[in-house]
Amino acid sequence: MPREIRLLNRPHALPQPSDFGLVRAPDPQTADGDVVVGNLWMSVDPYMRGRMRDAQSYADPWPLNHVCDGRAVGRVLDSRHPDFAAGDLVRSGLGWREIFAAPGAALEKLDAAYPHPQHYLSALGGTGLTAYVGLLDLCDPQPGQTVFVSGAAGAVGSIAGQLARIRGCRVIGSAGSDAKVALLTNDFRFDAAFNYKTQDPMDALAAIAPDGIDIYFDNVGGRHLEAAIESLNDFGRIAACGSISRYNDATPAAGPANLFQIVPKRLTMRGFIVSDHRDRQPQFETDMKAWIASGEMQVKETVVDGIENAVPAFIGLFSGQNTGKMLVRLA
Amino acid sequence: MPREIRLLNRPHALPQPSDFGLVRAPDPQTADGDVVVGNLWMSVDPYMRGRMRDAQSYADPWPLNHVCDGRAVGRVLDSRHPDFAAGDLVRSGLGWREIFAAPGAALEKLDAAYPHPQHYLSALGGTGLTAYVGLLDLCDPQPGQTVFVSGAAGAVGSIAGQLARIRGCRVIGSAGSDAKVALLTNDFRFDAAFNYKTQDPMDALAAIAPDGIDIYFDNVGGRHLEAAIESLNDFGRIAACGSISRYNDATPAAGPANLFQIVPKRLTMRGFIVSDHRDRQPQFETDMKAWIASGEMQVKETVVDGIENAVPAFIGLFSGQNTGKMLVRLA
Repeated sequence: MPREIRLLNRPHALPQPSDFGLVRAPDPQTADGDVVVGNLWMSVDPYMRGRMRDAQSYADPWPLNHVCDGRAVGRVLDSRHPDFAAGDLVRSGLGWREIFAAPGAALEKLDAAYPHPQHYLSALGGTGLTAYVGLLDLCDPQPGQTVFVSGAAGAVGSIAGQLARIRGCRVIGSAGSDAKVALLTNDFRFDAAFNYKTQDPMDALAAIAPDGIDIYFDNVGGRHLEAAIESLNDFGRIAACGSISRYNDATPAAGPANLFQIVPKRLTMRGFIVSDHRDRQPQFETDMKAWIASGEMQVKETVVDGIENAVPAFIGLFSGQNTGKMLVRLA
Repeated sequence: MPREIRLLNRPHALPQPSDFGLVRAPDPQTADGDVVVGNLWMSVDPYMRGRMRDAQSYADPWPLNHVCDGRAVGRVLDSRHPDFAAGDLVRSGLGWREIFAAPGAALEKLDAAYPHPQHYLSALGGTGLTAYVGLLDLCDPQPGQTVFVSGAAGAVGSIAGQLARIRGCRVIGSAGSDAKVALLTNDFRFDAAFNYKTQDPMDALAAIAPDGIDIYFDNVGGRHLEAAIESLNDFGRIAACGSISRYNDATPAAGPANLFQIVPKRLTMRGFIVSDHRDRQPQFETDMKAWIASGEMQVKETVVDGIENAVPAFIGLFSGQNTGKMLVRLA
């Protein structure tokens, strides 16, 4: 019987392994129009922390004792739907499980010839589209402008920073270790980077960007956001993508004391959720495949093997155990 | 000799009368192209507090021992410029003084037949344009949406709220006294209002707008901003116009602890300064004159007589001594 992971308790602060259960699910049963999928790769993402809370947000909270939601890429094992055949590569949003049956309408057929199917969860998936929409559509980066990306060695940040470079911007990134900082400048070819665990972001930006920054792509919130507001030039833009530094707070911490600067500096801060921007998927995928093929876009992934390791992989996101996208390989 | 007011010290927290000096200026001397103006009305505004700091912002700080900047409306007393004649009504940005000479290029000729010349400093001036641009251009209010305006009995707020009503929105305002709250609903015809000195804005909004607000026009910052973020619906807009609750802080207070909600709610917060939007002046003036003439827009002013009372009038802004625009009558 295939295995799946269910949410058993709503985490209070940092999620614990005991909040989840790895259970055997019944073998998939199909009706006409259904497809059986064997997942190859599944995604764990920081946003899932919000879905574990019992609070209405842009999506319903995950129900308890139910398989955890999330995107996965798999192969069709059996099909009773005319559009799918065994061997097809498909993407679903049906969660943390090894094998499942679903109506064909719940699946998206992918290019089976593409050599890196896991990219459909990282650079070519919601992760990449988040960076693309947040940086390019919402912040309008112009050549020569300075872009700061926090959590820049992470899944979204590493792509956002490279997109800024591709657009001709000067790119500054922060990351949580010296090894990640080296990765930013060497592999992702950022212009500058700093370790936010050993340098205060306020001091680091003042030193690295004495003329200020023009765009801030915020994955972190907290002190990073405060430092960015301090550093932003007039008419600067903030893409508010997430605030991973806050996701496990039992009580919300205070916001940036310098937020009032948004008026004299005429800043625009815009929160966004990738699911509002699915109309950009075709153009995004065309662009991103070209950048990956040319080597302009480096795709990094941290791969964990086996569904039994999905929970530690998810929890590890909050201590920065991933470089690039955190993925679980199931095949 | 005419009198003028100069800034003597940079205020630390709330400005004190001793930070200013009322002095006699030399009688105006003119060269070819100059115009002598006798001010009828001058404006004191909260934004001036920021200009008294020794910090670069969107405008240079005011120099010490120099006449305080600011807008005024006056009559031409004498002209050596072909475009101006004695008796013309003009607007300048040349500050807190009774009589002065300036090049014609520094003056803007107004409609001398307009019956309320002081409106050119309030509803028809930068105050009105601030409300117009901030609400209509930046927040795109749609009929049936709910708009919350803080400091709504003040100069900008009273106009912003009425513009929202004119656009067919439901309008909620906050003000600092029961008398002002009554003014909001009776005179300005807001749908609802509350006294923020006796009701916490978070509780008040929850009660008055159980279905949330769509737009927040922020004149106050602080707890008002936090309450608005809590109440804003998905895709809500914040026009960040000012944060008068913070202007006299010697040390900036913490920002809103719920700022992270900007992501899941997809909020847009946009700071703005009216001087970036002077291109809107002609359309704004046409619209506003029509709304005033029809009675849709009520213009309230708090009038203080004599330049010797300009400093108390300015300081009084921070304890809400004005209803509508605070003006000093000099004639």
